[in-house]
Amino acid sequence: MPLPPPRDFSELFERVGPHMAALDGFMRREVEHFEPEIRDMAAYCLDTSGKRLRPTMVFVSGWQGEGVVSDDLVRAAGVVEMVHLATLVHDDIMDRAEIRRSRRTAAREFGPDAAVLLGDALFSQALHIASQFPTTEVCRLVSESTRKVCSGEIMQTLRRRDINISLAEYRRMIDLKTAELFRVSCFLGARLSGHDPAFAQAADRFGHHLGIAYQIYDDLVDFVGEEKRIGKTLGTDLATGKLTLPLMLLLERVSADERAVMVAALRGGHPLGLSASKQRMQELGIAGGVVRAIDEELAVAREALAPFTRLTPVPLMLQLGEMLQKQVGALSATTVSP
Amino acid sequence: MPLPPPRDFSELFERVGPHMAALDGFMRREVEHFEPEIRDMAAYCLDTSGKRLRPTMVFVSGWQGEGVVSDDLVRAAGVVEMVHLATLVHDDIMDRAEIRRSRRTAAREFGPDAAVLLGDALFSQALHIASQFPTTEVCRLVSESTRKVCSGEIMQTLRRRDINISLAEYRRMIDLKTAELFRVSCFLGARLSGHDPAFAQAADRFGHHLGIAYQIYDDLVDFVGEEKRIGKTLGTDLATGKLTLPLMLLLERVSADERAVMVAALRGGHPLGLSASKQRMQELGIAGGVVRAIDEELAVAREALAPFTRLTPVPLMLQLGEMLQKQVGALSATTVSP
Repeated sequence: MPLPPPRDFSELFERVGPHMAALDGFMRREVEHFEPEIRDMAAYCLDTSGKRLRPTMVFVSGWQGEGVVSDDLVRAAGVVEMVHLATLVHDDIMDRAEIRRSRRTAAREFGPDAAVLLGDALFSQALHIASQFPTTEVCRLVSESTRKVCSGEIMQTLRRRDINISLAEYRRMIDLKTAELFRVSCFLGARLSGHDPAFAQAADRFGHHLGIAYQIYDDLVDFVGEEKRIGKTLGTDLATGKLTLPLMLLLERVSADERAVMVAALRGGHPLGLSASKQRMQELGIAGGVVRAIDEELAVAREALAPFTRLTPVPLMLQLGEMLQKQVGALSATTVSP
Repeated sequence: MPLPPPRDFSELFERVGPHMAALDGFMRREVEHFEPEIRDMAAYCLDTSGKRLRPTMVFVSGWQGEGVVSDDLVRAAGVVEMVHLATLVHDDIMDRAEIRRSRRTAAREFGPDAAVLLGDALFSQALHIASQFPTTEVCRLVSESTRKVCSGEIMQTLRRRDINISLAEYRRMIDLKTAELFRVSCFLGARLSGHDPAFAQAADRFGHHLGIAYQIYDDLVDFVGEEKRIGKTLGTDLATGKLTLPLMLLLERVSADERAVMVAALRGGHPLGLSASKQRMQELGIAGGVVRAIDEELAVAREALAPFTRLTPVPLMLQLGEMLQKQVGALSATTVSP
C-alpha cells in the first residue's frame, strides 16, 4: 500500500529525507575528486545549506515509493545541483553580490577571478558525473540545458538598464535561465525511474512551468523580501538595472512623470532606492499582478500532470507546486495592499 | 603505399588541410546551435584564425592516411578546440587582456560579465558535442580534462604575486592548465582511429610532454616575443605578477640587491618594466635555460613514440615536436646572448 500524499511540506521533506542524506554523502565524496589544491574552495561552494530545489524535483519526479533510494536519482540530483551551484558562483560575480545563503559569496571569499574558474571547475565536474551514466543521454540533456541557462543569463546581462524589454522577452529569459534546469530535473527524475515515457514528457512540462513560476517569485522576493530571512543580498535587480516582472508592472502603473524619473534612474545607472520602490509597489498593489502571473504558471504545471494522477510521483509533485504557492502567499500577505 | 613523412611544416599543414576544412565547416554549423540571441557572440569566439594546435594534434595522432577525413576526428577536434576557446575567453577576463589573435578579446568586446557567461556557454556546447559520440568516454575524458585545466588556472590565479613558487609547483600548474588538453587531444585522436591501445597510451604521454614544452615556450614568448607578430597582448605574466619559468630563472640569476627590488615590485603589484626585464634576460642568457627545459620535454615526448615508429601517425606527430623546436629556435635566436 503506498502512503497517502504528504499533508504538508514538512511531511514532503521527511519523505525525501533519505534521498537528501544520500545526496549529502554523494556531494561530500565528490569534493574528493577535485584537485587537492582547490578542494576546500569546491567544498565551500558545494555546501549543503541550500534549498536543493532541483534535487527535490529529481527525487519527487522519480519517486518509486517510501524508502526506495535509487543511485541513479542521487547521481542525477548531484549533477543538476552542481550545475546550479556553478551558475550561482558566476551570477554572484556579475551581480556583485556579497552574501548568499547567509555567508560570503565565492566571489567575495576568493576574489572574482578565482570564482570564474571555480565555477568552471564545478560545471566540468557536473558533466563528469553525468558521464557516469551508462548512456550519453544525461550528458546530452544537461550540457544543452547548461548552455541555455547561460544564454538566458547573457541576454539578461546584456539588457541591463534596457527598459524596452517586452513581457515575451522577459519570459524567454527566465525560461532559459531558470525553467530550463527545473524542466530537465523533473524529466530526468521521471525518465531514470523507468516511468511511462508520456509521463516523463508531462514531468518535463510540469518542471518548465514550475520553473517560470519560481523565477517570477524570486524576482518578487528581490523587491519585497527581507534580507535576513532570505539569507542573500536583495535589491540586486534594481541596483543592476535588471528589468523583472515586478518592476515592469510598476513602470506600467505609475504616472508618466514618475515613470520618466524611474526610467532615467534605471538608464543612468543611479539605482532607484529599494525602500522607495518597495513602498510604491505596496501602494499600487503590484505584488497582486505578479502573484496572478505565478498562479497561471502553476495552473499549467498542474494540468500537465492531470492524466497521470494515479502514478506514485504525482501527489508529491503537486505538493511542490503547493509549497511554492504557500511561499508566494506568505510573501504577498505583507505586501499586497488590500 | 603511404606517403613519406612531411619534409617541413607547410607539408604537414597541407596534409591536415582537408581535416581543417572539415573542422571549419563543423564549427560554422555549431554556431547555429547557440540560441539566436547569442549566436553572433559565439561566432566571434569560434573564429577560425587561431593556430588550432589541439585539433592538429587530434588529426595527426589519429592519422589514417592521405585523404581519409573521419567524422569522429573532426568532432573530437571540435570539442577540444571549443573547450580551449572557452578557457581563452575566461583567461582574457582575468589577465585584463585586450587583444587576442590581433583583435579585441571577448571581454573587451562584450564586457567581462557577458564574457564569463559566454565562456560557460562554449564549455557547455563543447560537452554537448562530446555527448554525440556513441559512448560516454569522450564526455568523461573531456569533462575531467576541463576540470583539471580550470584547477591549474585557479592555482596560478591564487598565487599571483607569490614569489615562493617551486619549480615542481610551476610544473604542476602548467601540467594541469595546458598539458592536460594536449594530452587528451592526442589520446582521443589515437583512440578514435582504432589504433593499438598501447599506442593510444603512448600518444597520451607524447601529448602531455609536448604540452608542457609548449607552455614553457608560451611563457617565454610572453617575455621576449614581439606583440605585433604574435597577435596578442604580451607581458601580461609580468604585469599580473605570474611567476613563470623565465622569471624564476631570472630571479635566481640576478644579484641579491637586484632580486630584492624585483621581489618587492612583484609583491607590491607595481609591475616590473617589460623592456628592462627583457634586457636583463638577454644579458644573463636566461632564454638558454628556458630552451633547455623545453628540449628536455620534447625529448621525453619523442621517446614515448619510439616503439611505434612504424605506425602511420608517428612521423606526423614527430613533426609537431620539430615544429615547436623550430619556433623556439627562431624566438631564442634573437634573445639568447652568445
